[in-house]
Amino acid sequence: MGDRYDVAIVGSGPAGLSAAVNCKIRNKNIIIFGQKNLSNKVCKAPLINNYLGLLDIVGEELNNRFQEHIDKMGIQLTYERINTIYSMGEYFALMAGNNMYEANTVILATGIEFTSPLPGEMEFLGRGVGYCATCDAPLYRGKTMTIVGYSSEAEEDANFVSELASNVHYVPMYSNEYKLNPKIEIVTGKPVKIEGNEHAEKLILENKELITDVIFLLKDSVPPEQLVPGLKIEEGHIEVNRRMETNIAGLYAAGDCTGKPYQYMKSAGEGQVAALNVVTYLSKK
Amino acid sequence: MGDRYDVAIVGSGPAGLSAAVNCKIRNKNIIIFGQKNLSNKVCKAPLINNYLGLLDIVGEELNNRFQEHIDKMGIQLTYERINTIYSMGEYFALMAGNNMYEANTVILATGIEFTSPLPGEMEFLGRGVGYCATCDAPLYRGKTMTIVGYSSEAEEDANFVSELASNVHYVPMYSNEYKLNPKIEIVTGKPVKIEGNEHAEKLILENKELITDVIFLLKDSVPPEQLVPGLKIEEGHIEVNRRMETNIAGLYAAGDCTGKPYQYMKSAGEGQVAALNVVTYLSKK
Repeated sequence: MGDRYDVAIVGSGPAGLSAAVNCKIRNKNIIIFGQKNLSNKVCKAPLINNYLGLLDIVGEELNNRFQEHIDKMGIQLTYERINTIYSMGEYFALMAGNNMYEANTVILATGIEFTSPLPGEMEFLGRGVGYCATCDAPLYRGKTMTIVGYSSEAEEDANFVSELASNVHYVPMYSNEYKLNPKIEIVTGKPVKIEGNEHAEKLILENKELITDVIFLLKDSVPPEQLVPGLKIEEGHIEVNRRMETNIAGLYAAGDCTGKPYQYMKSAGEGQVAALNVVTYLSKK
Repeated sequence: MGDRYDVAIVGSGPAGLSAAVNCKIRNKNIIIFGQKNLSNKVCKAPLINNYLGLLDIVGEELNNRFQEHIDKMGIQLTYERINTIYSMGEYFALMAGNNMYEANTVILATGIEFTSPLPGEMEFLGRGVGYCATCDAPLYRGKTMTIVGYSSEAEEDANFVSELASNVHYVPMYSNEYKLNPKIEIVTGKPVKIEGNEHAEKLILENKELITDVIFLLKDSVPPEQLVPGLKIEEGHIEVNRRMETNIAGLYAAGDCTGKPYQYMKSAGEGQVAALNVVTYLSKK
């Protein structure tokens, strides 16, 4: 356990970064959890024509500009995946695998998963299906584990898990060079279903079936209702008001996770609004 | 009377421009009312450090980038000051002096006046005090008129008025070279109060008094409650929901006029949200 931060920001897309920039300007002690490439979505975007002031910018260049902006402000990302956030009354506890972080306020900027849950995913969640490999792998020591990796960020988790598992299937949902331990078996194919009885037993792919003791679905973002127990969700998005407050005091949200339109300016604007309202909230505390 | 536009946008700051860009991308037939320098506020801003992707940009440069963005998209501004907007049920009528424009939807992005009303301003509004010189000057033909100009945009109105008035006092609230008809008397000094009986009779400045038949206060933006009869205002700002809808169907608002924080990213994000919801609204019509 380390310092207690003023603000923890979860997500490094436009909403999270805009929140970080504004919190930093207001001299808040922040921690921001994100990915090495900041935002997969921005990186992969073709020509963007509605980011006011930067006409016809390629996604990757916009992402580089974001990186430059935070670098020059001395904002450093923490490359950990937050799995659960608990409201402790006076503060929040953020769990990243076996590490815990504390913060007085939290801004969720986790984006949105466009992938619908697999048939069986919700049914078996907590019974052989999980979103945090590093958290739950020790429970399956010496067994067969299957990891569905939605981006290359999942590879590190797979490598960690392979030290505990008897064998590991890795199902990549992206094409890339894979940096995986030789012990890990790469299985290509689109997952279509999870089957089992009391407990998940099989991941069915389009072209084959994997018999397994546990399935970890490592998505870029954990569904917010899984991330924060008690968080109010409305039609699949985090319910917020115009101040970007959620139903939990001290917990704010910004960007795609709060609803449509899924757009960069909207996200950056909301990150700013969340940050400045967090600053007011902290000053009243 | 000309075409009926899909969308009329009032204001050319970050909110209005972002709305225009997004409406244009969606192939809407738009008209945008604004100023030659787009936004006085942005122009005068010193170094801006929280416009994500454009760190440490000088306001004037950001304004130039906005201009370039709309130029390249073929968006042209209409340099008229909208004085009143009437909801006609099926469409909106926008009055600019003696010109009228029609649009199916309106996005208000009028910014916020930081100047509080003068003592007497609200009391005498419509009785010798007005916000639209070109509208009301004909009522005072041959009389003494006083214009308080909050920016150089007011000079054109003053020149027009001088053709009708017996004499014109022009009180500039900015320093500049003034492009005014020789007939106009420039009076410097800070206005502190409006006095009269049934009707406004005097503009009191710090250092002198002006006897006058009418006082026109030409602010960069007309207060929204004056602009749109029936518009719901909450604590001095236009009440909007998360879709940027006001209480009037088809009328949206974005940017500073909807409330704090008064920030460029927030405004640009809201302009985008308003535009995309307008597009949805039009498609359902």
